[in-house]
Amino acid sequence: MNVQVISCVNEARAEDLSQKTVVVIDVLRATSTMLTALANGCHEVVPVETVLQAKSLQTEGTLLGGERFCKKIPGFDLGNSPLEYKSYQVAGKTVIITTTNGTRAIQKASKANHIVIGSMLNAKACAERMAQLDNEIAILCAGTQDLFSLEDGLCAGLIADELLRHLQAASGSPAQVSFNDFGLAMLNAYREVQHQLTDTLLSCANGKRLTKLGFKDDVLYCAQVNTLAIAPQVIGGKLEAIPACL
Amino acid sequence: MNVQVISCVNEARAEDLSQKTVVVIDVLRATSTMLTALANGCHEVVPVETVLQAKSLQTEGTLLGGERFCKKIPGFDLGNSPLEYKSYQVAGKTVIITTTNGTRAIQKASKANHIVIGSMLNAKACAERMAQLDNEIAILCAGTQDLFSLEDGLCAGLIADELLRHLQAASGSPAQVSFNDFGLAMLNAYREVQHQLTDTLLSCANGKRLTKLGFKDDVLYCAQVNTLAIAPQVIGGKLEAIPACL
Repeated sequence: MNVQVISCVNEARAEDLSQKTVVVIDVLRATSTMLTALANGCHEVVPVETVLQAKSLQTEGTLLGGERFCKKIPGFDLGNSPLEYKSYQVAGKTVIITTTNGTRAIQKASKANHIVIGSMLNAKACAERMAQLDNEIAILCAGTQDLFSLEDGLCAGLIADELLRHLQAASGSPAQVSFNDFGLAMLNAYREVQHQLTDTLLSCANGKRLTKLGFKDDVLYCAQVNTLAIAPQVIGGKLEAIPACL
Repeated sequence: MNVQVISCVNEARAEDLSQKTVVVIDVLRATSTMLTALANGCHEVVPVETVLQAKSLQTEGTLLGGERFCKKIPGFDLGNSPLEYKSYQVAGKTVIITTTNGTRAIQKASKANHIVIGSMLNAKACAERMAQLDNEIAILCAGTQDLFSLEDGLCAGLIADELLRHLQAASGSPAQVSFNDFGLAMLNAYREVQHQLTDTLLSCANGKRLTKLGFKDDVLYCAQVNTLAIAPQVIGGKLEAIPACL
């Protein structure tokens, strides 16, 4: 199995993503939020690139969610905080979401064979899905404004670690996975800080920015590992929750 | 002190490098080779971008060194293997060097206040020089063909670790250094593999490539930490050895 970790959306070349399974990660906060919405019973999540697209897709009973500059978009029902996406808000509903980096990463992966949504919350489920789907995998860190973000890189390392563990448990022998150099770096960075994930996320650029804007609880929530056993895929432009075991 | 680690030459923006101290790293093998030449008594190293430039600068008594596609350039005196740059070859001489990635990284840093040449061999000396020179530092990993190379990233992490240790020893209290997210990732990746550096370098893309081409001894040599106590700077387009303590 070949696993290529890509540091940010800007670094992804079309050939790195097409005909592969692509895992898209935007820990703070887009993919954590989408996963939370689905885990809380949301019928489907529709990620779109622009505010205009989101508004044009709105029908009765759908919710609009997302952010620009980390803040809720005027006229939208929900922001980009996973803590807003409670069952009573989203159960049974379609949520149309637009965010700065995460939805852009999903669009960039449009030529992939499969697109899986990953975060720390569902790392194990995500790794199990990857192992089922493909031998050629790209893990795309969304990053922030075309720069690498530590939380996405550490999450890529965590998912790589879960993948190795899963493959080894399944075969009974050490997993044969070939990582690119950046993937090896992220795997090792994750292993070094795995017992201080929350503090590390609070000290990286986005962790500090969100804390300053009053979203520290979001950072604490998104730093949790393997709390959600779903591995949603983007099919026909929409995400639906698929339990890890299916 | 602000330290920004940049993943490869292609990722460096002019404003990230100008008016700062820039540490250039190309562990396999350009900067390791330049440092070895200087430690072995070479009078000066002149890094240039093209083969033509190198040839045009040659005069009697100078040596031409470097590589294309990891191999010695036809008509050149030396390749890019640090093990070729013995005292009897280089002592007292000027060596003009051109390599694929390392010399390009040095050129890219031309607007820096200071350019320091770093590798695993001189990480401690390099960190001590950085602490003397500036509070605004960029560590530029050369990478390979516009992609991140693990050995350069780990070396950036090692130099960052030496810097923290040096500042703490000097002040007696924890060092106040602000790293960018990529720098934090490299610092942690280095710390995770610090006791298996040789194996890690043999298993990364360039380590494998060089081993396949018959240069495994170069990888083993370049994986050594703090064997050279020099921190050369590029001044007027040339490198001269400057001991760490000066």
